[in-house]
Amino acid sequence: MTENSQKQNRFLIELQPIGRRIQVPGGTSLLGAAQLAGVDITSVCGGIGICGDCKIRLVQGELTPPTLEEKDIFTEEQFQNGYRLACQAYPLSDILLEIPPESLTSLQRLQLESQQAEIAIEPPIQIIPINIPAPTITDLRSDFTRLQDELKSIVPSMKVEYPVLASASPVFRKAKWNIQAIFNQDHLVSIIPTQNPTIIAGLAVDIGTTKVAAYIVDLNTGVTLVQDGLMNPQIAFGEDVISRISYVINHPENGETSGSKVLQERIRDGLNKLIQTMQAEIEQKFAKQLEIVDAVVVGNTAMHHLFAGFPVQQLGLSPYVPAVSEASLIRARELGLNITKGGSVYLPPNIAGYVGADHVSMLLATLYQYRKELAYTNKAVVALDIGTNTEISLLHNRQIYSCSTASGPAFEGAHIQDGMRAAPGAIERVQITKDGKIHYKTIGDQPAIGICGSGILDVIAEMYYADILDEKGALLNHHPRVSRSGRFPEFILANEDETGHHQAVVVTRRDINEIQLAKGAIRAGIDILLYEAGIEVGDIDEFIVAGAFGTYINVKNAMRIGMFPILPLDKCHQVGNAAGAGAKYMLLSKYYRELASKIAHEVNYIELSNHPKFTEEFSKSLFFPIKYLP
Amino acid sequence: MTENSQKQNRFLIELQPIGRRIQVPGGTSLLGAAQLAGVDITSVCGGIGICGDCKIRLVQGELTPPTLEEKDIFTEEQFQNGYRLACQAYPLSDILLEIPPESLTSLQRLQLESQQAEIAIEPPIQIIPINIPAPTITDLRSDFTRLQDELKSIVPSMKVEYPVLASASPVFRKAKWNIQAIFNQDHLVSIIPTQNPTIIAGLAVDIGTTKVAAYIVDLNTGVTLVQDGLMNPQIAFGEDVISRISYVINHPENGETSGSKVLQERIRDGLNKLIQTMQAEIEQKFAKQLEIVDAVVVGNTAMHHLFAGFPVQQLGLSPYVPAVSEASLIRARELGLNITKGGSVYLPPNIAGYVGADHVSMLLATLYQYRKELAYTNKAVVALDIGTNTEISLLHNRQIYSCSTASGPAFEGAHIQDGMRAAPGAIERVQITKDGKIHYKTIGDQPAIGICGSGILDVIAEMYYADILDEKGALLNHHPRVSRSGRFPEFILANEDETGHHQAVVVTRRDINEIQLAKGAIRAGIDILLYEAGIEVGDIDEFIVAGAFGTYINVKNAMRIGMFPILPLDKCHQVGNAAGAGAKYMLLSKYYRELASKIAHEVNYIELSNHPKFTEEFSKSLFFPIKYLP
Repeated sequence: MTENSQKQNRFLIELQPIGRRIQVPGGTSLLGAAQLAGVDITSVCGGIGICGDCKIRLVQGELTPPTLEEKDIFTEEQFQNGYRLACQAYPLSDILLEIPPESLTSLQRLQLESQQAEIAIEPPIQIIPINIPAPTITDLRSDFTRLQDELKSIVPSMKVEYPVLASASPVFRKAKWNIQAIFNQDHLVSIIPTQNPTIIAGLAVDIGTTKVAAYIVDLNTGVTLVQDGLMNPQIAFGEDVISRISYVINHPENGETSGSKVLQERIRDGLNKLIQTMQAEIEQKFAKQLEIVDAVVVGNTAMHHLFAGFPVQQLGLSPYVPAVSEASLIRARELGLNITKGGSVYLPPNIAGYVGADHVSMLLATLYQYRKELAYTNKAVVALDIGTNTEISLLHNRQIYSCSTASGPAFEGAHIQDGMRAAPGAIERVQITKDGKIHYKTIGDQPAIGICGSGILDVIAEMYYADILDEKGALLNHHPRVSRSGRFPEFILANEDETGHHQAVVVTRRDINEIQLAKGAIRAGIDILLYEAGIEVGDIDEFIVAGAFGTYINVKNAMRIGMFPILPLDKCHQVGNAAGAGAKYMLLSKYYRELASKIAHEVNYIELSNHPKFTEEFSKSLFFPIKYLP
Repeated sequence: MTENSQKQNRFLIELQPIGRRIQVPGGTSLLGAAQLAGVDITSVCGGIGICGDCKIRLVQGELTPPTLEEKDIFTEEQFQNGYRLACQAYPLSDILLEIPPESLTSLQRLQLESQQAEIAIEPPIQIIPINIPAPTITDLRSDFTRLQDELKSIVPSMKVEYPVLASASPVFRKAKWNIQAIFNQDHLVSIIPTQNPTIIAGLAVDIGTTKVAAYIVDLNTGVTLVQDGLMNPQIAFGEDVISRISYVINHPENGETSGSKVLQERIRDGLNKLIQTMQAEIEQKFAKQLEIVDAVVVGNTAMHHLFAGFPVQQLGLSPYVPAVSEASLIRARELGLNITKGGSVYLPPNIAGYVGADHVSMLLATLYQYRKELAYTNKAVVALDIGTNTEISLLHNRQIYSCSTASGPAFEGAHIQDGMRAAPGAIERVQITKDGKIHYKTIGDQPAIGICGSGILDVIAEMYYADILDEKGALLNHHPRVSRSGRFPEFILANEDETGHHQAVVVTRRDINEIQLAKGAIRAGIDILLYEAGIEVGDIDEFIVAGAFGTYINVKNAMRIGMFPILPLDKCHQVGNAAGAGAKYMLLSKYYRELASKIAHEVNYIELSNHPKFTEEFSKSLFFPIKYLP
């Protein structure tokens, strides 16, 4: 069969245990087939064969031979059991395959923040009940003129959103001319018959690269009616920001099949499903209709751009500038987001290509709300959100210095031999006692199958504390669990007889190195901001750790390995999903929207990649500095 | 077969000579089937079996038996030849049918106005060429911030249309940062690389109930680059405004199949095809790209609402108010109109349910442009546009009085036994000489097959002049062509041996009566406006007849039958499609847009249906007043 005729064939791919089937043309990888079928297979590297996450097992059918990349990852025995990488294997016949649970991205635990907003409720949304005189033979004004005449003293420069224009006349008549006019500033976005009991609400969303958190907030009371989350459905196209940008760059076709359209569609459809679920929950609970009349969406610059349909190609190329950095108000219908037809979505400003609206939202929630007395003093406050990119800000003398540092996905379990994300069976806490005994805790108290970010941070700090590591990260010999029988030295954290998959869970020298790079990058970022502000670690008054990962970690251990500077613990605060909280504030308050723009404009953005002191700080930060905290 | 099981069957309907096929459920009339197949069958009455226009011939298959309505229209011989009304006949088997040419609506001649605009060119569109500094490692502003920084002195409060936000970054790079920024007022609607030679143009459209005229105008020079037209594709759903409103009322389903969505889709698709043709013509002719960056669309209130997607149900119910009467600027993408992605459509204001934006546009073109010295004097000017509804305005002492009068479709050939629209073979001019000889001229000099509006007006005036009619419209006996052999007396205009279908073309007593009603309504409208202004016929300084029909008619004959008041001919002007000309002015001038709103606001609208003098004036106007013009 020539390559050409092979490409013209179509093969049926059946995915088990999910039970999806899809027909694909020859030349489509199994990863591509799964993506087309809507099955989210983990793929950290974006499909280039190096992360080894998209493992699948061939049950039936014929695939292309294993590639060199696969030979690096699988043993001969694994090949014989049918294991392959979905991104490297192409069908030569109809295929039945099995996706191991660890290759699916939909199991992870979501961390949500539920802090009630305690701010003055002054949303851009105004609800105006009015009674419009009905037309008569002597009053022939058009429907909208009579509406406008009633409202002109309240909203003199009323602008009407098109879907309201196109649908209001029958609503006026059905409502017997008694309506609630819903305005977003001076835009009429919805008309609701007064006789229907309706909750007027807003939607706040934090789109993370991995997780999405959503809140529906009553705009009259400020109360969060429901909160929910989902895995970012774009994960099937690459786990980190760079992989998704690559996906867009590699799928430049015009129209509905372009990479950016596909990614936009995935997050939009995911949010719409989430909205539907949340809406049903509220309507059942309160026995009232729910009308979502406004939305605020935050995310890092790439997530922001992909959701908004803005180009991301230039985010993948130096000098990495955003397409749009100003705050944007986009009609929900342009984005296909299912809120009230005339409603809009507020997207706060981005600071830079890798410091996004979510960081602005986090600063808003922490510096200007949670610890707001600090924002207007001369105190020094560090606030950071750890992720594949870690965004860090330093407030000092009312100046904000911000940077982004490429801390990599190690804390999300990637590039770590037995790493995994925070799913059941992940080791999340580790302690090594003085007598060398190892204690660990897994998520859901399941038999261990791997280590998640907080676990890897713990184990390395504990190994250092127990003298199993030296300050350069080399494994020392005097612990029975240190093994040198493999290719590289490793530390056996869990024996094969105690794990869920009957293989040992280990920490390798390479894993330690990955964590050194990650924590070194974070620490170098903090140190350069201090340098720019002309202050030292001892001058820090508050240290705020936001985000899901930052909330789970043991801060003491983060100091021990040198990721965080050594500070009294009472100066440290783990605040949860502050970006989501900030989004809620912007839903409820025009003032916070203005503040977001003010913050983004005033930030002194420090580009680390060409900072003269970055390399020096980074090298210094790779070591483990201190064993015993003061 | 029960009615139920019959409805569940599906039948294949084949339409000849067009060659379309469609499968429809039982219970779908042949008219419905043709509409679903996209074949436009004439249907003046909207499908209730009284106009007799939707004649078809059954070639093969079985239909439901003829209805009483059909028995009123067809002879036994015609039934034997297979003639039926498409709206009355339902399939009982697969059907092959033939549509006679006169039942198709797509043959008619279009009348277009080509007067060059002679106005100051000050469009809302601004074209600003700029050179944006590219991003560098030391200049990390976002793409839009750098654009905004370049433009802030020129357009300080720039607003960016979403499709421009979503597509500009790659255009900036492709254009090497040299672009033309196209603004509509302060809205950025398009970005065009400077290196591409491009004509920046606007689209003006006049949507008539029957005909649509479109113009593409160079916004730099004001020159009309191309003009074209099409039959309003909504005709398949009823020939007049009322039938189309009924169609919407009778198809209230939500979603894409609702009557209003279907009608909106038809006109939108028709316009998009027209735009494509016109664009190709211009691009070929000038060897440049064409970018249509703005549009102005006028139409009567119902056409305006159906195009804009506004509800029309209330236009069908007393007191007949528009949903929207203010001028509207709607994003072209909300209407699905294929101009530049960020562009918008300007819809001038409507005056009332039956005096629409097209009338405003006509007044703009006639009173304020064509005869503009009159608009600012105390002179008395009548301006009218004859159609199924005739809109009439009277300018006097700088006041405008307007009304709409239900003149009916007789001048479009409907409700007239041998009436037809202005298609080849239609008698369009008639003269009866002193010796009683009849001369006529047909469109395209084809053998006669019917009479169009200007022909019927001529023949009645000539019959009156030749003493074949008395002043009440009764047929007198002393002409050899007056026949009393049929059910009603009739005048044989063309013998069966000289016609194309070998049947005589006749004018019946009932036809004369239809024209009396039509012209009486128009005249009563004029007289009531004069009465309201407190002046008389002799005070009229100018008499302006706009529109396709008005331009074809013999004005002298219109005076003879009393449709127009008797005036010196040099006071009368036939100005063609003034509504289309007005649309072009509004494309080229912000001033004319403001003027349109001013006119609409200042008009004294006179509702004839409850005017105390209407019945009296109407009865008086039914007679033929004068045989010999002074």
